[in-house]
Amino acid sequence: MKPEAASSLLPSIDGARLWASLMDLAQIGATPKGGVCRIALTDGDRAGRDQFVAWCKAAGLAVRIDEVGNIFARRDGTDPAARAVATGSHIDTQPTGGKFDGNFGVLAGLEVMRTLNDQGIRTRAPLEVVVWTNEEGSRFTPVMMGSGAFAGVFAPDFIRSQKDVGGATVGDELARIQYRGEQACGDVPGGMYAGYFEAHIEQGPVLEDAQLPIGIVSGALGQQWYDVTVTGMDAHAGPTPMPLRHDAMLASARMIDEVNRIALAEAPHGRGTVGYVNVKPNSRNVIPGAVSFSVDFRNAAQDGLDRMDAAMRASFPAIAAGCKCDVEIKQVVKFEPCAFDAACVSSVRQAAQELGLAHMDVVSGAGHDAVYVAQVAPAGMIFVPCKNGISHNEIEDALPEHITAGGNVLLRAMLAMAGVESRG
Amino acid sequence: MKPEAASSLLPSIDGARLWASLMDLAQIGATPKGGVCRIALTDGDRAGRDQFVAWCKAAGLAVRIDEVGNIFARRDGTDPAARAVATGSHIDTQPTGGKFDGNFGVLAGLEVMRTLNDQGIRTRAPLEVVVWTNEEGSRFTPVMMGSGAFAGVFAPDFIRSQKDVGGATVGDELARIQYRGEQACGDVPGGMYAGYFEAHIEQGPVLEDAQLPIGIVSGALGQQWYDVTVTGMDAHAGPTPMPLRHDAMLASARMIDEVNRIALAEAPHGRGTVGYVNVKPNSRNVIPGAVSFSVDFRNAAQDGLDRMDAAMRASFPAIAAGCKCDVEIKQVVKFEPCAFDAACVSSVRQAAQELGLAHMDVVSGAGHDAVYVAQVAPAGMIFVPCKNGISHNEIEDALPEHITAGGNVLLRAMLAMAGVESRG
Repeated sequence: MKPEAASSLLPSIDGARLWASLMDLAQIGATPKGGVCRIALTDGDRAGRDQFVAWCKAAGLAVRIDEVGNIFARRDGTDPAARAVATGSHIDTQPTGGKFDGNFGVLAGLEVMRTLNDQGIRTRAPLEVVVWTNEEGSRFTPVMMGSGAFAGVFAPDFIRSQKDVGGATVGDELARIQYRGEQACGDVPGGMYAGYFEAHIEQGPVLEDAQLPIGIVSGALGQQWYDVTVTGMDAHAGPTPMPLRHDAMLASARMIDEVNRIALAEAPHGRGTVGYVNVKPNSRNVIPGAVSFSVDFRNAAQDGLDRMDAAMRASFPAIAAGCKCDVEIKQVVKFEPCAFDAACVSSVRQAAQELGLAHMDVVSGAGHDAVYVAQVAPAGMIFVPCKNGISHNEIEDALPEHITAGGNVLLRAMLAMAGVESRG
Repeated sequence: MKPEAASSLLPSIDGARLWASLMDLAQIGATPKGGVCRIALTDGDRAGRDQFVAWCKAAGLAVRIDEVGNIFARRDGTDPAARAVATGSHIDTQPTGGKFDGNFGVLAGLEVMRTLNDQGIRTRAPLEVVVWTNEEGSRFTPVMMGSGAFAGVFAPDFIRSQKDVGGATVGDELARIQYRGEQACGDVPGGMYAGYFEAHIEQGPVLEDAQLPIGIVSGALGQQWYDVTVTGMDAHAGPTPMPLRHDAMLASARMIDEVNRIALAEAPHGRGTVGYVNVKPNSRNVIPGAVSFSVDFRNAAQDGLDRMDAAMRASFPAIAAGCKCDVEIKQVVKFEPCAFDAACVSSVRQAAQELGLAHMDVVSGAGHDAVYVAQVAPAGMIFVPCKNGISHNEIEDALPEHITAGGNVLLRAMLAMAGVESRG
């Protein structure tokens, strides 16, 4: 059977139902400006989890909870020996978050299950939809806590001992909202996933700019973050001639421009951002004596990150010296670059092609649960555009046709890996 | 009589006495770190004024107060028709100010009077020492309030209606500390001053850098201050490729470097400073969507300030456009450049030469009371070095030999203008 013929046998998801579920879930923690506030392990998170679990049970899925609160909803396959094919994301949000970040991936997975139920399709391998605990990290650090624990990056005891600013621990809050489960982190009935696919809004402008509905995510950029401190000497703006200044702001301005040059030299995947700047004493007529700022470097490969690091360390001291200042550079965060599984990436691409959906390969600039899952299982991601590339914002938005397209790509990629055994 | 012979007849001030008075006055409002907090029209300012007035009375001077609290202490001359030669400065300080800023000029003037008393010298013209109200402007705006009112720049009613953050007015506070006088602003018995000389610490690093004890101040830089607002678009640092950014911080960094280039093109008197920067949202992994910053341009002549203004207005929009941002420039402060009276400047230079004191011509980068007085009377200034050029700081410091040198230059310049009639 040719692929065209095979694909014509496969169903489509119910885009209207997926959209309605997104809107329903967004009512839990809805904000006046149209966003969602459903911070990890709060009562709002519990209500969202309860809704998801109720939907899963209504769809006949078997729900398990692990020891850090990750939720797994399984639809059995026909082959008891087959390892499951999974999908998922998160439903916790930023304090002023949107309706789609995370929620789209979770509910697209649920919609896949519902569609298979409607069509009476049985798969060879079991399927699972996962809700990962605390992806956002806005209340408890580290970010991507649940998927990181699942992948063995963080010990469950470490995770449960993490505190919010009020001193409440993850363990206490899991117990309080009744989502501390029995399953050990990383345990999967029948063995680790054969594959994991995560659908997500892009959270950036690339797909919208290219006017394409689907991004085939080949991996995620590595990240290295720094604190930079430039020290000069405060002095009055009036009586201090230019040649006698130790101007920490001028030195910092040149470094900020240099961060941009360093990133441009690593096109297309190099990124360099100075998002935070603190000036002392920050008075109009005083030459700044001290400026601290952040540097966020990202690149698709570690050697690229190494080049960016080296370029910064080579240039900043010279820039500082040119302004009679000193500079200190301290690395504060590191995430390795991630390349998704070639077969998973191909599955996603083939699904988009079969559906006739225009697409491009993209690299995720942000971290996602799939990046941690990729450390223990073959993984891939599907991006859909979001309006103006805006996310982590109450005005986050996406088009129904893109949500539907992403759901259909997810369905096909999962079925291609799990195998279709029979249709009702 | 040759100048050398004439000068040898003139006395020297008592440097130790001047230093002791500086240290005594610094006890009023002394801070634990060795500085002074004597903010305008507070109880501390009253105590400082009372001490000055007591010293003046002990020196036989006649004290008058004007309607905005300026204090005038006169030593009569022999010629009833001669207009007075004046000196002075201020004794209010910044909240964490030093012992010398302002106080040096006032007490050097008092020391001139004491020296003439000791030597039994009578001058042809009367001499006056003036304490100007609220030069610093840290409690009440505008700065240089007393001298500005004296020069007719501000109406006395306007000055008296100015409020501090607690709502107290200058008028109320003058009455409360009993320094609201009868003399009309700008009135001087016998007519406006024939000349005004103000001794002051440099508040900058030029004299120290040149290792010279005396600065002949030829004028004061004009100032134009601006608020600049750069608007881009907030976006996540990760998912937003470099070419799709609207990075308000990158644009601002390039503008800050441009401010420096504009000032360097106007060497030696052009100055350009960005002292205040505010970044939104100021988060490490968010490309800044809005940055506002201050620009402080100074130059010795208005055409230079005009060129700086034009260069900024020509370059900033192009820099903004290069980062897909918009920019708004708003001028918020303007002080015209000031050239001191040629004869007064010569008098100061000649005094330094006669004393064999190494000196250089300098332009004041900051505003001083003398700049306002120069609008109504011939004026000049004498600078002495301060340690590391630091002022408006509790660690402000100066060397006794420089304080003495400045006092002697002041004495000679005043006597040259007032005329020595007789010696006891």
